[in-house]
Amino acid sequence: MTVNYNLDVSSTSLIGFIKLQLRWRGSIWKSVVMELILFTSLFSLVTIIYRTNYFLSEKQRRFWDDFTALFDQKLDYIPLTFMLGFFVTIVVGRWSDIFQNIGWVDTTALFIATYVRGTDEKSRILRRNILRYMVLTQVLIFRDISMQVRRRFPTLETVVAAGIMQDAEKDKYNDTALKYNKYFVPIQWCYSLLYEARTQGKISADVMLNEIMKQIGDYRKGLGQLVNYDWVPIPLVYPQVVFLAVRIYFLLAIIGRQSVLIDGEPPKDPNPIFPLVPFLMTALQFIFYVGWMKVAENLMNPFGGLFSPLGPSTWSFHSP
Amino acid sequence: MTVNYNLDVSSTSLIGFIKLQLRWRGSIWKSVVMELILFTSLFSLVTIIYRTNYFLSEKQRRFWDDFTALFDQKLDYIPLTFMLGFFVTIVVGRWSDIFQNIGWVDTTALFIATYVRGTDEKSRILRRNILRYMVLTQVLIFRDISMQVRRRFPTLETVVAAGIMQDAEKDKYNDTALKYNKYFVPIQWCYSLLYEARTQGKISADVMLNEIMKQIGDYRKGLGQLVNYDWVPIPLVYPQVVFLAVRIYFLLAIIGRQSVLIDGEPPKDPNPIFPLVPFLMTALQFIFYVGWMKVAENLMNPFGGLFSPLGPSTWSFHSP
Amino acid sequence: MTVNYNLDVSSTSLIGFIKLQLRWRGSIWKSVVMELILFTSLFSLVTIIYRTNYFLSEKQRRFWDDFTALFDQKLDYIPLTFMLGFFVTIVVGRWSDIFQNIGWVDTTALFIATYVRGTDEKSRILRRNILRYMVLTQVLIFRDISMQVRRRFPTLETVVAAGIMQDAEKDKYNDTALKYNKYFVPIQWCYSLLYEARTQGKISADVMLNEIMKQIGDYRKGLGQLVNYDWVPIPLVYPQVVFLAVRIYFLLAIIGRQSVLIDGEPPKDPNPIFPLVPFLMTALQFIFYVGWMKVAENLMNPFGGLFSPLGPSTWSFHSP
Amino acid sequence: MTVNYNLDVSSTSLIGFIKLQLRWRGSIWKSVVMELILFTSLFSLVTIIYRTNYFLSEKQRRFWDDFTALFDQKLDYIPLTFMLGFFVTIVVGRWSDIFQNIGWVDTTALFIATYVRGTDEKSRILRRNILRYMVLTQVLIFRDISMQVRRRFPTLETVVAAGIMQDAEKDKYNDTALKYNKYFVPIQWCYSLLYEARTQGKISADVMLNEIMKQIGDYRKGLGQLVNYDWVPIPLVYPQVVFLAVRIYFLLAIIGRQSVLIDGEPPKDPNPIFPLVPFLMTALQFIFYVGWMKVAENLMNPFGGLFSPLGPSTWSFHSP
Amino acid sequence: MTVNYNLDVSSTSLIGFIKLQLRWRGSIWKSVVMELILFTSLFSLVTIIYRTNYFLSEKQRRFWDDFTALFDQKLDYIPLTFMLGFFVTIVVGRWSDIFQNIGWVDTTALFIATYVRGTDEKSRILRRNILRYMVLTQVLIFRDISMQVRRRFPTLETVVAAGIMQDAEKDKYNDTALKYNKYFVPIQWCYSLLYEARTQGKISADVMLNEIMKQIGDYRKGLGQLVNYDWVPIPLVYPQVVFLAVRIYFLLAIIGRQSVLIDGEPPKDPNPIFPLVPFLMTALQFIFYVGWMKVAENLMNPFGGLFSPLGPSTWSFHSP
Repeated sequence: MTVNYNLDVSSTSLIGFIKLQLRWRGSIWKSVVMELILFTSLFSLVTIIYRTNYFLSEKQRRFWDDFTALFDQKLDYIPLTFMLGFFVTIVVGRWSDIFQNIGWVDTTALFIATYVRGTDEKSRILRRNILRYMVLTQVLIFRDISMQVRRRFPTLETVVAAGIMQDAEKDKYNDTALKYNKYFVPIQWCYSLLYEARTQGKISADVMLNEIMKQIGDYRKGLGQLVNYDWVPIPLVYPQVVFLAVRIYFLLAIIGRQSVLIDGEPPKDPNPIFPLVPFLMTALQFIFYVGWMKVAENLMNPFGGLFSPLGPSTWSFHSP
Repeated sequence: MTVNYNLDVSSTSLIGFIKLQLRWRGSIWKSVVMELILFTSLFSLVTIIYRTNYFLSEKQRRFWDDFTALFDQKLDYIPLTFMLGFFVTIVVGRWSDIFQNIGWVDTTALFIATYVRGTDEKSRILRRNILRYMVLTQVLIFRDISMQVRRRFPTLETVVAAGIMQDAEKDKYNDTALKYNKYFVPIQWCYSLLYEARTQGKISADVMLNEIMKQIGDYRKGLGQLVNYDWVPIPLVYPQVVFLAVRIYFLLAIIGRQSVLIDGEPPKDPNPIFPLVPFLMTALQFIFYVGWMKVAENLMNPFGGLFSPLGPSTWSFHSP
Repeated sequence: MTVNYNLDVSSTSLIGFIKLQLRWRGSIWKSVVMELILFTSLFSLVTIIYRTNYFLSEKQRRFWDDFTALFDQKLDYIPLTFMLGFFVTIVVGRWSDIFQNIGWVDTTALFIATYVRGTDEKSRILRRNILRYMVLTQVLIFRDISMQVRRRFPTLETVVAAGIMQDAEKDKYNDTALKYNKYFVPIQWCYSLLYEARTQGKISADVMLNEIMKQIGDYRKGLGQLVNYDWVPIPLVYPQVVFLAVRIYFLLAIIGRQSVLIDGEPPKDPNPIFPLVPFLMTALQFIFYVGWMKVAENLMNPFGGLFSPLGPSTWSFHSP
Repeated sequence: MTVNYNLDVSSTSLIGFIKLQLRWRGSIWKSVVMELILFTSLFSLVTIIYRTNYFLSEKQRRFWDDFTALFDQKLDYIPLTFMLGFFVTIVVGRWSDIFQNIGWVDTTALFIATYVRGTDEKSRILRRNILRYMVLTQVLIFRDISMQVRRRFPTLETVVAAGIMQDAEKDKYNDTALKYNKYFVPIQWCYSLLYEARTQGKISADVMLNEIMKQIGDYRKGLGQLVNYDWVPIPLVYPQVVFLAVRIYFLLAIIGRQSVLIDGEPPKDPNPIFPLVPFLMTALQFIFYVGWMKVAENLMNPFGGLFSPLGPSTWSFHSP
Repeated sequence: MTVNYNLDVSSTSLIGFIKLQLRWRGSIWKSVVMELILFTSLFSLVTIIYRTNYFLSEKQRRFWDDFTALFDQKLDYIPLTFMLGFFVTIVVGRWSDIFQNIGWVDTTALFIATYVRGTDEKSRILRRNILRYMVLTQVLIFRDISMQVRRRFPTLETVVAAGIMQDAEKDKYNDTALKYNKYFVPIQWCYSLLYEARTQGKISADVMLNEIMKQIGDYRKGLGQLVNYDWVPIPLVYPQVVFLAVRIYFLLAIIGRQSVLIDGEPPKDPNPIFPLVPFLMTALQFIFYVGWMKVAENLMNPFGGLFSPLGPSTWSFHSP
């Protein structure tokens, strides 16, 4: 759910800032609003119980004063800032690695268009098939790691319908009896076509054949890396510990932040406005921390719609 | 808006420091001054209302004492330092990746000058065209990701006028019916020219042809990476949360930093100088934090004038 | 012990969060539960001694008040957060390097299937043997660095039984008189087979032979890297210092966190609920810090079951 | 100004520590001493005015007590530690990138010595010239980015005098009408010589020629990277903000650190030794922070004498 | 002095933790024990003077109360945690870079065994010599950067005695009149042998020769990197500032940590146990910080025994 906002930040003025904040799709506001409402409701409920005369006796309220103050003070035990800072950095690094490995057919397409010669129909189809198989590999993999692509291609039939696979190929693919990495069967088809092209003299030198083979190999490696990233995520304990810490912190803040002590002393004149200050600040803190956490949640699962593999595929159909 | 200041810091003395600070273009002062004036004005306004006798009664002022103290204390809830520190580090890393991928034609130009032989006019034009197409690709991409280059080349006609594209090529380019990555059509032209040169014996070996092809491929990959970086920015939530935190912090500081408590106690003799201390310190804090934030804002949008692609292009026209 | 949880975090809502927390295998709960029970028991024991009237005189209890308060205050001397933050970052970086080097035969297998020609039985066996030797190298190495693989293949006989090695090969391997890096003997066999294939014309060009050789070389280098990582771990002092700090901290917290001072003052009405607050918060702190530490402990020893080398091996038997 | 101290730290004992501290060249002491004296003088001046009876009345001194205490407390607003920590990490990373790109002719020299055959005088000169041109490129670039090399070679004549360039070459170089990247003209000469050597059969295969070409290309790319690093520094705002923060902090510390409150209370018996404690600690803080800052200042400008390009050059003259 | 402890941490239980802590070689305990004893002695000495009645009058002791409290409070000025955290991260990064560059002959050896054909004695010696020269280069370099290897090979004679160099080679090496990088003379010998092998047809194709040349080139580059790392260490200021900060901190802690104030107040009943608490905590702090610092000290000087180059060398003698 990455939304492009470059133009908005291109002027570094206050107006750019306001524009940036007013965006809704993929924004902090959208990702935080529901939980913020929940937090505010619970906080208000506790405030009402605590500050009005309907629920607690004077003595109970005095106990509650100390209780919340104690809680407020101990909230610091939870090392939110560091956990989030380090965790987000790791997740961003991983996300950017994944982004490098998505697999682009462009360079290879250009090489194939140059090295695989022949202007007859058969040569054209040959070139097209090689690229189609590369795109097909990508689609097969993204179907398993991205919900959005899965929804677009729920079955192999839909892939055939989109013209990325042919019926005969689908059967051949289904007949392949591999338990792992079946994804890469189309790459093998690519390679066969290329070797054939070399034998027929459509590729005029071994060094050219080898160059294309290597590039497709790198493409495959990138996709394989995606599969691995999907297969071995960041150890479960890490996100659990971080996300739990954030939520527990604000759950306890509902009690702790009722306290209005100033340097350990209550303000001299009680005033109904005072409790609003810690509430306001805690709500802001909520927005910032939960927003920060959302960065991590978003990036940990980058294939929830980030990339549409159809881009390159469409391209490759028109190119050679 | 990167300004070169290396010479100023080359002596690590106090004088070097002062020289560094006195620079204006691209400096902290320039980027902070407007917002600092705004902040100072608002802060002064609140101070005048609070500290003079015209607006508040004595009782109101006592309430205000507690109110600002409470605010001051709760300001710490906003984890500015960490957010900025981690965020700037990520942005700087990304910026330096982008910088690596700008695309330099130099090495390739030298290879072409060596490998593509022939002293006749046709060979010279051939060599020149290959490089021109490389530069053209760069221009086409930068037109879409850099405001400044867009301003220099608002239409393809202006690119033609600058001699980077020919009229016939413009038409051919416009006729290409690609939805994505149309940028790389000139690379295809490069490749055709190179293959032709090999067939005509102007390049004497397949291994040489392949080397140039590979280098142009790497060049294209770098430019493709730029397009990707432009297309998938850092998730919106992250800069939103960080920039919002900084601005909210200083908005609330306008209230909170009116307080002059020393270890929870007001100074014994009230003195009009005391309120100046928290103001001065908060203004400094403003300069440092907002300046730090400006580093991130600047680097998130590196193509607001950073690089002039004409440098390499001009070069390549004269070289072979 | 990496457990896949991607699907659970794919919706970034509260429900996704709860689902994530409810997982048990490889979770924070599982890794923390035993030590948490121990911590709670000891803490309760000290509380009972301290707060009830059976063990301590009034005077002793007053002494104890000051004693725990002093301890509580000095607990901050232990820089847990930073040590853990920096250490976990380093360990995660190392783990992800190791993960890159596990060694995948896929690309090479595809190249061999394309470049090593011949449809007769001998050619098929040749292709299969080359891949088998690659897998064998992996198995030999993983037997020495991963407990789990060692358990699966306690002796070379079991490797033979699994069909990854032949009896004659086992003898040949045992006869090789190398003290170091004996692992890579099967790679030498690979290379001999490949050269033979080139001499017999099954590989039709030197450039093809060289490409396969290079890829197997990279594969070997990755595995060699694993051996090195196993051989030279992060210097012992670093994990010792970090893990010790965490444990000592919570050992001392058993005493220090008995204190219920609020801003240096005891609460006005003693209430048995008060001591529960620091206990609850310390228990949470225990969960977060020890959970964070477990991330490091887990990743420092990634071969305690992370990867099953049989995956690729099985694959390679069916492929060419 | 990098000074080698490896031997001193090779024993990790106290003696090694003391030896390390006693070094002067490039040390913390040398880089800090002048500013420390300035700081101490100013601090003492303020102390004398404040603590003696000659300048301030009793009432003024009481005001001053509160004033310094307030200042002391607000000093924390300046986030020195984080700014420096993150900034130094970025600068160190950049410095180590630059270090990787300095350009070493060694490997290439060895390849040329092997691949370019011929024992006659002409062949020897050919080999020597190729390497000389590589070194020449380095010298031309370092003249523009390193003060020290510029001082060694103020004009092209001095380069000629050092035997790195010939008179005819100087004229040819001056006649080249390039605005950018003129540095790489000698690389073009290298390439011409190499191609000639191939035509004359001194290099016996295209693959060998190509290998040398590629290595020289990598060498050029490294040097080009240096030019880029010099051309696009870290955005001015970042060092400005960090260096300013450090200096402002200690300027204000001159006032703020006059305060001797202990937990908000003055010590019971005034004693002239008390003010020495905050001074001593602030001076130490000064040493550590300013020293840390010096790390950044030094590394931001690595060519103020770090590398002597004559090392490799001298080497290459003797080698083939 | 890296000690292998992987097996001990393979179970993530308390027992694994205890086992890890009980190790002595290369442990925190060994590296900290001497300085800890020194610290404890000095601290006890000051305590005895301060707390007993023999040395100080009552008034002096009251002064001392304030004095230590002031010191204790100001200790926070020294930013130990951050300096160490950032510094250790940089040092660990550098160490792991160095580790990547140690130079492994394995892959090259396998290529040579495959590509350099011939079963006669001369061919065997040829293969062996090439590898021997590679190992020799490593030994020559490690003699200059690692104390331990220098001790093993104090003179070139001892290298000859170990069979890594021959007498004639030693003379030839000594006669080479290079000032810099003389280390790489044996690599030149390698290359000559290889070219000879190609001329004699022992290597059957240029592409094979070039591959081996390239691999040896990479090997040389790695070793060259080691020389560079040794030549240009982290700027002296950085370790000086960090190590000094740690030591000064604990020197001052000897005075500052005598204070037993609880939230600014002395405990009501003086009790000889109270001073033990800050001592214990400071001793723990000492162990953690100094231990952390030892990580940096150890890794800054990785060749104090880390790697025995004989491993690969022995291997290479038996292999081809």
